[in-house]
Amino acid sequence: MSELHRAHNFNAGPAVLPLEVLQQAQAEMLDFKGTGMSVMEISHRSKEFEAVIATAETDLRDLLNIPSNYKVMFLQGGATLQFAMLPMNLRSAGSADYIVTGSWSKTALKESQKLGTSRIAASTEKEGFNSIPAAYDLDPKAAYLYYCANETIHGVEFPTEPVAPSGVPLVCDTSSDFISRPLDVSKYGVLFAGVQKNAGPSGVTVVIVRDDLLERTPSNLPVMLDYKTLAESKSLHNTPPCFGIYMVGLVFQWAKKLGGLAEVQKLNQQKANLLYKTIDESGGFYRGHAQPGARSLMNVPFRLPTEELEEAFAKEGAKKKLIGLKGHRSVGGIRASIYNALTIESIQALTDYMKEFQKNHG
Amino acid sequence: MSELHRAHNFNAGPAVLPLEVLQQAQAEMLDFKGTGMSVMEISHRSKEFEAVIATAETDLRDLLNIPSNYKVMFLQGGATLQFAMLPMNLRSAGSADYIVTGSWSKTALKESQKLGTSRIAASTEKEGFNSIPAAYDLDPKAAYLYYCANETIHGVEFPTEPVAPSGVPLVCDTSSDFISRPLDVSKYGVLFAGVQKNAGPSGVTVVIVRDDLLERTPSNLPVMLDYKTLAESKSLHNTPPCFGIYMVGLVFQWAKKLGGLAEVQKLNQQKANLLYKTIDESGGFYRGHAQPGARSLMNVPFRLPTEELEEAFAKEGAKKKLIGLKGHRSVGGIRASIYNALTIESIQALTDYMKEFQKNHG
Repeated sequence: MSELHRAHNFNAGPAVLPLEVLQQAQAEMLDFKGTGMSVMEISHRSKEFEAVIATAETDLRDLLNIPSNYKVMFLQGGATLQFAMLPMNLRSAGSADYIVTGSWSKTALKESQKLGTSRIAASTEKEGFNSIPAAYDLDPKAAYLYYCANETIHGVEFPTEPVAPSGVPLVCDTSSDFISRPLDVSKYGVLFAGVQKNAGPSGVTVVIVRDDLLERTPSNLPVMLDYKTLAESKSLHNTPPCFGIYMVGLVFQWAKKLGGLAEVQKLNQQKANLLYKTIDESGGFYRGHAQPGARSLMNVPFRLPTEELEEAFAKEGAKKKLIGLKGHRSVGGIRASIYNALTIESIQALTDYMKEFQKNHG
Repeated sequence: MSELHRAHNFNAGPAVLPLEVLQQAQAEMLDFKGTGMSVMEISHRSKEFEAVIATAETDLRDLLNIPSNYKVMFLQGGATLQFAMLPMNLRSAGSADYIVTGSWSKTALKESQKLGTSRIAASTEKEGFNSIPAAYDLDPKAAYLYYCANETIHGVEFPTEPVAPSGVPLVCDTSSDFISRPLDVSKYGVLFAGVQKNAGPSGVTVVIVRDDLLERTPSNLPVMLDYKTLAESKSLHNTPPCFGIYMVGLVFQWAKKLGGLAEVQKLNQQKANLLYKTIDESGGFYRGHAQPGARSLMNVPFRLPTEELEEAFAKEGAKKKLIGLKGHRSVGGIRASIYNALTIESIQALTDYMKEFQKNHG
């Protein structure tokens, strides 16, 4: 199949993957590195798979420049399971602070409240989750300060991370902007990401934890919810999602070949600029959801003058192989997710289509 | 690559997959059903993926003849997470009974004890986990009676399921003999299986639950640990492991094409007979671990006269592309896992090798 037949994939996650990563997975599907087996058929304790997971970790450490006093885990259950594992492992009897900037941080707060005490340090819900808070009401004794770097549904992204009080670990859900830009890991206590947006197929969650925080894990947690055990076993306490970890490793290699995250960010900025420019120059036909200072480089939700036009826009787009443009069912409208692996050609196809659609319906 | 270059794969899990399943996954890796996307890149809420997961469920219902008052879920975290989710959802303040016949049921008991009260209804640990208990000490008021149908490490398999007291739901870890033989689901409260032995790549856990037991789920469980919510959302509460579910679906279709589980069982019986016969006719050179009445059709651990010979056996075997023969690190010895997708040719290659090895070293 030629690259020309590939869809322009604006799905929010699972999402577009680099073509060369898929091609490599396809090429070695029946025989992984001369083993006579698929990577799905080798033991997770074989030297071949140990190399897969060790290389994936090393490449991620290179990409994000992760300090040596942090552990990297490849877990299951998505970010949603982390919403519970975090307070289980980190809060003890204390209280945690949450910054609520969209659906995902709101859900994280809700999960956390099931298990103990949590405070809202800031919320932009009243304004419809279209901005980053101007100020925070921070608990200097909080077990941690939680935020979501990029809200996939509302398309708001923190330009820089919030600053936690001294001694309070900063915890970040970076699912939808993971490896989309450089990050100073040393500012964080915990970073986690479901990989199915920027870094692989669904079914793998990367969790990066500072070593000292592992000492907070209470004894007698179920082992699959226990950061300390999972970190010490190097994600091999039980059988990990091997194929997913293999794919994530290939994506990390691809990102390194692009030149690392500074280069990846440049490409993402170019793509986002093109799309936001088309929105801004439409004379109000397209209206972006997020305020300019909070605009996501990854998820761009916008509205058209009517819901009927929005439906037509998504439908006609799909006929032109522009896929996944319908907004999340909870908010409606249009959303274009423009992750790392989306090419500039796909953005060009989208903005061309937007201009044409406006000409026909504006 | 021709089939001739495939390894003889005796891995315990992840394990051998049907060649035609891998070939189909390979063929449609870049373009799933004309979408111009990989099945890894389509939305879990797209009509294409909805068909994948619905078809997988329907095919499993056909294969196991699952009654309509049971829910089927495709979850993450492996059987090990189920060890905790089970008591969290089913036990309330009561006590649960456990039958301990090997490493995995022992681990399940341990996880359960972290969370509340559990009793040992029977244990074969003193005899080295080589048999099925002759009798049980059952609590007629137990929240459930737990057992592991097939112990992957010790190679003991229940010929038929134990009988729970009236009103006590029977719970079964069927990870390593899942879809290897017909099963009367109506005798069970819960069945679960990590699929990475008989039914797919690691990263998917199938859980089958009788509807009335979902009413036991306490309110305020973290959502990813909550059977009721996960069942009601049809495994789509959050992003499921899409590629894994797709692969599991292909394996279910393959098993149906073989003629269903009665036919699958026949083939498994033939393969196991060949291997056990070779052990039994070796004059004591090869000694099976499990007693004849408890012999697994899936995992066949056996010993040689010395550890040096065992090491040589595994090593020389690997050179002949007989892979995965080393016993589990916790028990040593040799183990051949001979799951559904292992061909009779691979068993023939193994038994030929066993005879040759005995001739050279016996």
